[in-house]
Amino acid sequence: MTAVSDGSLGAWMSAQLLRVEGALDVWVTDAKVPKLGWGAPASLVQAMRYAVLDGGKRLRPLLTLAAFEAVDAGAQASGGEAALRAACAVELIHAYSLVHDDMPCMDNDVLRRGKPTVHVKFGEAGALLAGDALQALAFELLTPDDGSLPLAVQGRLCAVLARAAGSTGMAGGQAIDLASVGLPLDEPALRHMHQLKTGALLHASVMLGAVCAQASGPVLAALSDYGHAIGLAFQVVDDVLDVTADSAALGKTAGKDADNDKPTYVSLLGLQASQRLATDLRAQAHSALRSSGLANTAALAGLADVVVQRSH
Amino acid sequence: MTAVSDGSLGAWMSAQLLRVEGALDVWVTDAKVPKLGWGAPASLVQAMRYAVLDGGKRLRPLLTLAAFEAVDAGAQASGGEAALRAACAVELIHAYSLVHDDMPCMDNDVLRRGKPTVHVKFGEAGALLAGDALQALAFELLTPDDGSLPLAVQGRLCAVLARAAGSTGMAGGQAIDLASVGLPLDEPALRHMHQLKTGALLHASVMLGAVCAQASGPVLAALSDYGHAIGLAFQVVDDVLDVTADSAALGKTAGKDADNDKPTYVSLLGLQASQRLATDLRAQAHSALRSSGLANTAALAGLADVVVQRSH
Repeated sequence: MTAVSDGSLGAWMSAQLLRVEGALDVWVTDAKVPKLGWGAPASLVQAMRYAVLDGGKRLRPLLTLAAFEAVDAGAQASGGEAALRAACAVELIHAYSLVHDDMPCMDNDVLRRGKPTVHVKFGEAGALLAGDALQALAFELLTPDDGSLPLAVQGRLCAVLARAAGSTGMAGGQAIDLASVGLPLDEPALRHMHQLKTGALLHASVMLGAVCAQASGPVLAALSDYGHAIGLAFQVVDDVLDVTADSAALGKTAGKDADNDKPTYVSLLGLQASQRLATDLRAQAHSALRSSGLANTAALAGLADVVVQRSH
Repeated sequence: MTAVSDGSLGAWMSAQLLRVEGALDVWVTDAKVPKLGWGAPASLVQAMRYAVLDGGKRLRPLLTLAAFEAVDAGAQASGGEAALRAACAVELIHAYSLVHDDMPCMDNDVLRRGKPTVHVKFGEAGALLAGDALQALAFELLTPDDGSLPLAVQGRLCAVLARAAGSTGMAGGQAIDLASVGLPLDEPALRHMHQLKTGALLHASVMLGAVCAQASGPVLAALSDYGHAIGLAFQVVDDVLDVTADSAALGKTAGKDADNDKPTYVSLLGLQASQRLATDLRAQAHSALRSSGLANTAALAGLADVVVQRSH
């Protein structure tokens, strides 16, 4: 596996973030659709853009683009519009989940990425609709009718994203989370919840990039292992940061989980064991990349490090 | 165009409804997914099933199946699993929209199809998640990995459904509706709102069936015209029923729109002109079917009649 210095990963991330921000800015829009003769209503698009633009680490899009580049050596030359669509689609699912999660009937959070949450800014009905529309837009991005993405790939991408977002993925994990407040979960139950709630979409981020690059067989399997490892690592680190970081660094209210008596890795295993688990999962992710046989995994390896070493 | 007697349309509808109810019962489930090793959490699936099963006219699935049969003469022989998936997918989008619409921050309705609404039964967070998961499940249904539906068709179906559900379709229409309370909309503005809010998904119901049967060219265009006509007719009739029917017949609270000072066809054109418009739109739908050149349009023609003549 090629090792990247922090500097080269940083440059790669900056370049990809520019692409992602630019694409989201273009694709989350109220521009008229020629075939329809109208665009999305401005009031809705305003809330959607507020939820998506100018904030967030964009970890999921970066994973998609890194996985695509790892499999498709010619990615830079081809421009990789398919992967960019998939990268933005997974971010829209993530963004919609945050909008709905923050609503009063869920976590009732008023601060997100250092800004008022969507329902504070646009009202609850506005937030509900913006989230709903963002989920649909994710599937619109995956299904362009301009020939830029083969129809068969479109079908596979929608399959991956829908399952990661739905009742056996993210929404399912949130339902378990909701039902688990105050309950004594053991480690397997907690792991299961996180596999669905956070892990499924992170795993899908990697898979979407791999599918865009037509990966299959052992390569796809190795990237799937990588995706599972960083998916769980992300949540373990989230639990750690919930007790070790402050609200300003997190850009959201710290200590919420403990306050809400939600089971976390830290409450279950303790802080040190949780930090060790995160390090172990990073090693598993690196090992999966080595076993993939791919040459160009530096960005994926670097992102595994970012997931575990991040401070917010 | 073949005319169907009420009796034969009734028999067709009963047979198709059985298929749809049976399929929804199987597909909205917490059964373990072999590849994942787990199913959806029971608490979530319970709310999803409550929202979907045992209720509703299933107009959208019937339109999908009728459009499929109109184009694909061998539909009965092939079993039409693709069309059944598409039929259920569009119903899941419809069902999720009702769940979210009924929530306190939207219409705050406590009665739907004669039963307590989902948030009354499962709490607001439960309703929010159930709706979110139903939207994802719609796209899961369209993207089976068992070879029952060609990948390229999966991509096209997802494209149609996502656009009908999203910010230039249903969610966009709801946003316009939300922003229009108390505003003096003219007929073009009201028509635009309804085209998005209700029309887009009804139109998509027809298109999904046509896409499953690989319709193209003038046939697809004629079915699209049919879909637009009945889509608008449905909403005009809805507005008429809101003032002429009572809550018991509707299975929901009658007179809500007038109470909420929402613009409707009746408030804009008056009752008689609205009823005339509905009849005109039915004639347009029938005319589109004639121009399609398809022989087997009896069910679609009958459904246009049902849309306009329904009492709830």
